[in-house]
Amino acid sequence: MQILLTNDDGVYAPGIASLKHFIQELGTVTLVAPDIEQSGVGHSITFNQPLRIREVHMNNEFIGYGVNGSPADCVKLAINEIMRERPDVVISGLNMGANVGIHILYSGTVAAAVEAAVMGFSSIAVSFEITEHYDDIHNAAKVAKDVIRQILNHKLPKGYLLNVNIPAITPERIKGIKITRQFTQDFKEAFQKRVDPSGRAYYWLTGTDKSKYQEEGTDLSALSDGYISITPLRYDRTDYQLQKTIAEWDWKY
Amino acid sequence: MQILLTNDDGVYAPGIASLKHFIQELGTVTLVAPDIEQSGVGHSITFNQPLRIREVHMNNEFIGYGVNGSPADCVKLAINEIMRERPDVVISGLNMGANVGIHILYSGTVAAAVEAAVMGFSSIAVSFEITEHYDDIHNAAKVAKDVIRQILNHKLPKGYLLNVNIPAITPERIKGIKITRQFTQDFKEAFQKRVDPSGRAYYWLTGTDKSKYQEEGTDLSALSDGYISITPLRYDRTDYQLQKTIAEWDWKY
Repeated sequence: MQILLTNDDGVYAPGIASLKHFIQELGTVTLVAPDIEQSGVGHSITFNQPLRIREVHMNNEFIGYGVNGSPADCVKLAINEIMRERPDVVISGLNMGANVGIHILYSGTVAAAVEAAVMGFSSIAVSFEITEHYDDIHNAAKVAKDVIRQILNHKLPKGYLLNVNIPAITPERIKGIKITRQFTQDFKEAFQKRVDPSGRAYYWLTGTDKSKYQEEGTDLSALSDGYISITPLRYDRTDYQLQKTIAEWDWKY
Repeated sequence: MQILLTNDDGVYAPGIASLKHFIQELGTVTLVAPDIEQSGVGHSITFNQPLRIREVHMNNEFIGYGVNGSPADCVKLAINEIMRERPDVVISGLNMGANVGIHILYSGTVAAAVEAAVMGFSSIAVSFEITEHYDDIHNAAKVAKDVIRQILNHKLPKGYLLNVNIPAITPERIKGIKITRQFTQDFKEAFQKRVDPSGRAYYWLTGTDKSKYQEEGTDLSALSDGYISITPLRYDRTDYQLQKTIAEWDWKY
């Protein structure tokens, strides 16, 4: 089995190293990831500047390829230019931090998996919640591998993707797996206004007190309850319900 | 009526200037846009560095605010920090280039409208196809205003967004308006490999020969046939069909 592995935390991130370590049991892993952290880049792609591919070594050992672009760029380049065989599955992660609710929209980790699905591959985005109380990403990567193995055994169809999130608790305390939907409510965000030494204002994006928001069946509530959440995502963004409504509106041109 | 206007081509782009010119007939326009072009940034947001807001003047006249971030950042900042009243509608555009098919995923123009919808506002993304034969963005902005006026008259509900695309033909030749769905097939992309003066390889993303792909009812085919396309988009990315399928898989943890 040929596996393409990418992420948005960058080629040197511990999450991708741990995940690579474990999923090598499942197949041949080609690692292609951004040179530097790309969190929150969403589904950005690079066409206004050229991309570079470089071989990355750690402790004198070749570990994979670094790209000066986004996670979606990595998937495009890996499949078109780097890999000799087409991957059987594309895996993105293990991300440091959950990608649930509307954070799915901003996530480079998820975007890489979306890109792979658009290109006709089956793909899996995997993220690890992480809290101040628990952040053992190596243990989480082992859990991720167990989930990935099950997905591969079930033969996820080509062009489809699953978004997997692992709760920030020890593997023994995880209660099970829940098949979920995306929590769609807005997280309450705000800007913190500060003033620099020259007297000019600048703004930091802050917020998301998720504890107040719970809705049964969602990725967010599954994670809060100590379950691994798996949400299937689609890249057809059409709102078919609203489409029916506005098709009845009186349009004139 | 309070209108927030943004884009991804940047605060100085002709498309946003023309659109502002025309939609001032519809209400009070606050323009908040990226300092520099942000095409292809998708739904990226900025939380690893602070954001700045600056007042932008053209010909000694105040035109709006520039932000050193993405289109989605502009929407967040405009609503939380810049506008005194909450907008009745958020408009993103007029983009130079169509945002149809899977390009919707990469589009900063569309992401700004998605961000507004997530925050609970009704929003409209408007793009203009542009070809080598026709690129009169001022005329296209007038067409855009006509479409926007109709959407506002119909009272698009809060939290919903429409993606409008205007074909690259003169207003008289436009055949009408079609309510469409997103074309979901992959555009055929490739990388062009070049070698720099130091002998190192670099790659340009190229491609998308759209002429081969046509599918009745989609945004892409409406545009090719000379219609304005309007596709309602949703930000719940859950694939509910696949969810039913995988809920029946045998999961173990």
